[in-house]
Amino acid sequence: MTAERDREEGLSFQPKFGADGLAACVAIDVRQGDVLMVAHMNEAALEATLKTGVVHYWSRSRGALWRKGDTSGQIQRLVEMRVDCDQDAFVALVEVGGDGGACHTGRRSCFYRRIETGQHGTRLAFTEEGDRAKGERC
Amino acid sequence: MTAERDREEGLSFQPKFGADGLAACVAIDVRQGDVLMVAHMNEAALEATLKTGVVHYWSRSRGALWRKGDTSGQIQRLVEMRVDCDQDAFVALVEVGGDGGACHTGRRSCFYRRIETGQHGTRLAFTEEGDRAKGERC
Repeated sequence: MTAERDREEGLSFQPKFGADGLAACVAIDVRQGDVLMVAHMNEAALEATLKTGVVHYWSRSRGALWRKGDTSGQIQRLVEMRVDCDQDAFVALVEVGGDGGACHTGRRSCFYRRIETGQHGTRLAFTEEGDRAKGERC
Repeated sequence: MTAERDREEGLSFQPKFGADGLAACVAIDVRQGDVLMVAHMNEAALEATLKTGVVHYWSRSRGALWRKGDTSGQIQRLVEMRVDCDQDAFVALVEVGGDGGACHTGRRSCFYRRIETGQHGTRLAFTEEGDRAKGERC
């Protein structure tokens, strides 16, 4: 089996991080099945996630390991972790603690706006769930 | 409204790319609601996606703009594009052409293995949908 085929078809875990040491991770609400957030993991965050069963990310803005929920209570308990074909992206199926949300704006999902293109250029619009009223910060 | 708050609560589209010029995009099958793949977009890929309604990525391995499906027929027609709170990640709700899959291994989703931790270290296991039989390349 070639190295590439082994990475794709084998059962050995060979996570691949980008030049910046990071890989994208999508957090999915295991009950509702929708995307809560997309963030990044470095090797330490991935290891901590698998070891503790609580999702850790690497905060690019703070340059620090980040156990999601430490300040908000929105802990993400890992139910299942998946890896993609070339092992450079992850999907975390999670149960969320606290108020059940993931977004620091107070909404459940970070993806509360859709992109619309039209005569007047490209604009955003709130999804029903993401409307302004729900954007009040806790 | 501060610049940060405008980015999070406003309706102006201000996509933010990383130091490498890229942002993660999660493709979701609009019918089944599950994650098909995670890839990256640069500004040109995002613009081409919004302009044409067909999802384009930036191939990091090939260093080229990549209209998904051009060789495989697995075209991703954009039904809705969402952006997250800080506008540096995207979710594309897509209808897939061709065989309805997204993965070059022949599977529908790239996330066909889960990560398992145990006595013998960290290993992968195929999900039911991602078992070896389905991994035969077309």
